[in-house]
Amino acid sequence: MMFPLDQIEIIAHSSPSKIVQVVMDGLGGLPHSQTGMTELETAHTPNLDALAAGGTCGLLHPVAPGITTGSVPGHLALFGYDPVQNHVGRGVVEALGIDFALQPGDVAARGNFCSIDDKGLLSDRRAGRIPTEESARLCQLLSSIDLSDIVPGTQVFVKPVREHRFALILRAEGLGDDVADTDPQKEGLAPLPAVAGSSGSDRTAGLANSFVEAAHEILSSQIPANMVLLRGFSGLPHMPPMSQVFRLNPAAIAALPMYLGLAKVVGMTVFPAASSIEEEFRILADSFAQYDYFFLHLKPTDLAGEDGDFDRKVKVIEEVDSLIPHILELNPHVLAVTADHSTPATYKSHSWHPVPLLLSSSWCRRDGVSAFSETQCLKGGLGHMASVQVMPLLLAHAGKLSKFGA
Amino acid sequence: MMFPLDQIEIIAHSSPSKIVQVVMDGLGGLPHSQTGMTELETAHTPNLDALAAGGTCGLLHPVAPGITTGSVPGHLALFGYDPVQNHVGRGVVEALGIDFALQPGDVAARGNFCSIDDKGLLSDRRAGRIPTEESARLCQLLSSIDLSDIVPGTQVFVKPVREHRFALILRAEGLGDDVADTDPQKEGLAPLPAVAGSSGSDRTAGLANSFVEAAHEILSSQIPANMVLLRGFSGLPHMPPMSQVFRLNPAAIAALPMYLGLAKVVGMTVFPAASSIEEEFRILADSFAQYDYFFLHLKPTDLAGEDGDFDRKVKVIEEVDSLIPHILELNPHVLAVTADHSTPATYKSHSWHPVPLLLSSSWCRRDGVSAFSETQCLKGGLGHMASVQVMPLLLAHAGKLSKFGA
Repeated sequence: MMFPLDQIEIIAHSSPSKIVQVVMDGLGGLPHSQTGMTELETAHTPNLDALAAGGTCGLLHPVAPGITTGSVPGHLALFGYDPVQNHVGRGVVEALGIDFALQPGDVAARGNFCSIDDKGLLSDRRAGRIPTEESARLCQLLSSIDLSDIVPGTQVFVKPVREHRFALILRAEGLGDDVADTDPQKEGLAPLPAVAGSSGSDRTAGLANSFVEAAHEILSSQIPANMVLLRGFSGLPHMPPMSQVFRLNPAAIAALPMYLGLAKVVGMTVFPAASSIEEEFRILADSFAQYDYFFLHLKPTDLAGEDGDFDRKVKVIEEVDSLIPHILELNPHVLAVTADHSTPATYKSHSWHPVPLLLSSSWCRRDGVSAFSETQCLKGGLGHMASVQVMPLLLAHAGKLSKFGA
Repeated sequence: MMFPLDQIEIIAHSSPSKIVQVVMDGLGGLPHSQTGMTELETAHTPNLDALAAGGTCGLLHPVAPGITTGSVPGHLALFGYDPVQNHVGRGVVEALGIDFALQPGDVAARGNFCSIDDKGLLSDRRAGRIPTEESARLCQLLSSIDLSDIVPGTQVFVKPVREHRFALILRAEGLGDDVADTDPQKEGLAPLPAVAGSSGSDRTAGLANSFVEAAHEILSSQIPANMVLLRGFSGLPHMPPMSQVFRLNPAAIAALPMYLGLAKVVGMTVFPAASSIEEEFRILADSFAQYDYFFLHLKPTDLAGEDGDFDRKVKVIEEVDSLIPHILELNPHVLAVTADHSTPATYKSHSWHPVPLLLSSSWCRRDGVSAFSETQCLKGGLGHMASVQVMPLLLAHAGKLSKFGA
């Protein structure tokens, strides 16, 4: 029941009304063993509760029931794009996130500096989360790697992202992006070779393996970051921008380059990475006149969930709640608060559980929900739906969709 | 999750059991600002409430969440046909609705008599809703238009529909139907030229423009109807009839030709347009023995919604409720009451909000719903589904579907 984008494009029209979509990363939770309440249910959230009571709520399956989504499909769906049909690799997202001007044909990979022991086995997949400046210095070293003896004319770009993360971009003729990760995802194992999944990507796999070999040599004395892992090999996808399919003039506000990169893939204008939740809300207020759709991404809920820190996740939710009035002062026509996926603190990882959705506008049908929580959203007027179905709802409530058919 | 028609066709079988599907056009509403209750919730509906209590309820998305549907896709979905895949143009619907024998290759358009001022700008898109008899006289005048000098052998049919509405049918070799509307949808603007969207429709656009030019000349002295607007250029779609895919012998009862025309597209037998709700119920009773599926279309709920007349919509709902016992006396095996879309009186227009569905039969699982309303249907046993999913449910409850698979 996903309405096709080529049909949305026909009925969508530009208008002055404003949409704010707040994505609290990993918001969905699971009950605390003592209280039986999730993080969101535990948090004191008078502002979100009032919005839920006056609006319409529901539960979203980020991709499909039972599927635990990564950040990329989880967000693509919220942006209105089919998360299964539209594959955007992690490498592309990292590269775009640091403002690297990716060209069609480039293959990008997300890199991690990591630590290996003298047997070549991974002792730390993140090299102790080395600081960004250190990572930048190491990237500089790796930038000297020359692969033009393998494929003539190859250019290699190694760019720091944040802490242990970097982006590798390979530029040469005839590079496919169907190459498996070298990250075995577990410590105690050896990094894997880059293996092409199809013959069109043999050349890329060859370049990647030579890069890793050269990097290992250069880094051998750079404890703890004495090795690299590569994953998410990918080239630029072909996705119509939000300006075309939804007739929006969209902007993205986030603290991490990855989310800004992803927003760029669908044509959003992005603001420089913010350094706090408060700053993100300030950017929204300052730029409110210039755009008609805002993606406001809040990461700390997910980080607390990943760390298994129930109380910290509760505190982050309460902090966000306390800032909601700053959005209401702007008087957007539509305000949605939701998540890209669940990251229950008890589960310490992304999970498949549906995420709560709150939609506030003048045209909401009442549904008896009195607070913003997983349990109450279950009874919400929007029922259960897939995240990809949210964007048409936001556009409809903002008066940006004409009638379909005669 | 739409079960494919070619599979339905395999498991559907004819049987004497009877299905009545009552469509209260635009039934879905939004809360009144004073009471917080929708039109349906405000109306006193003891008969519908009793049916809801004994049956199973749910909420339907006519096309998809957030999509405001026109009448055509909204009804096609209720008839069991994918409303996005099956495009039926307005012209076809109007022509069939007045019993015009459309032939494959014909292109039909919905016409409006309209008023333009001396600058050629639209002053009234409906020419003051001139009476049908006046429209018939003008259609007679326009029937003299001869376009055979443009495309040899062209036949032009101009047929009155109701008030300012007429149908134009062009019959000639090689006519495509990909032609844009000449109706700019707004007063103060000039009518648009008919423009072909692809080269296969150039000939149709040429004929349409010549027709409009000739019509303008003929009508110049016929104030207020001194011009015409054309929209919904379309040819007969290729849809398997309900007799084939659902093994039904279906009949349609409605007051407006448009809905009867649409019913014909899917192969229903249609009764002459009724002049009141009561007459529609009488036609149903009189013809009950001859058919096994009845589409009973009730328009006044939508008209009241479009007019923003909350109280009138409530009254219409109450009138329908009072007539429900006449259906129950017939003892159909399945009675469904629903809508093609919402037309909330507060919104004064079709909207995207899901519509209530009530299904009554001997085989309903109870769901705790005690009244027919949007809020109660939200808790109904059928949950949220797409309108296109309803027909298999009706067939199943009527014992007209065999087991799928071994």
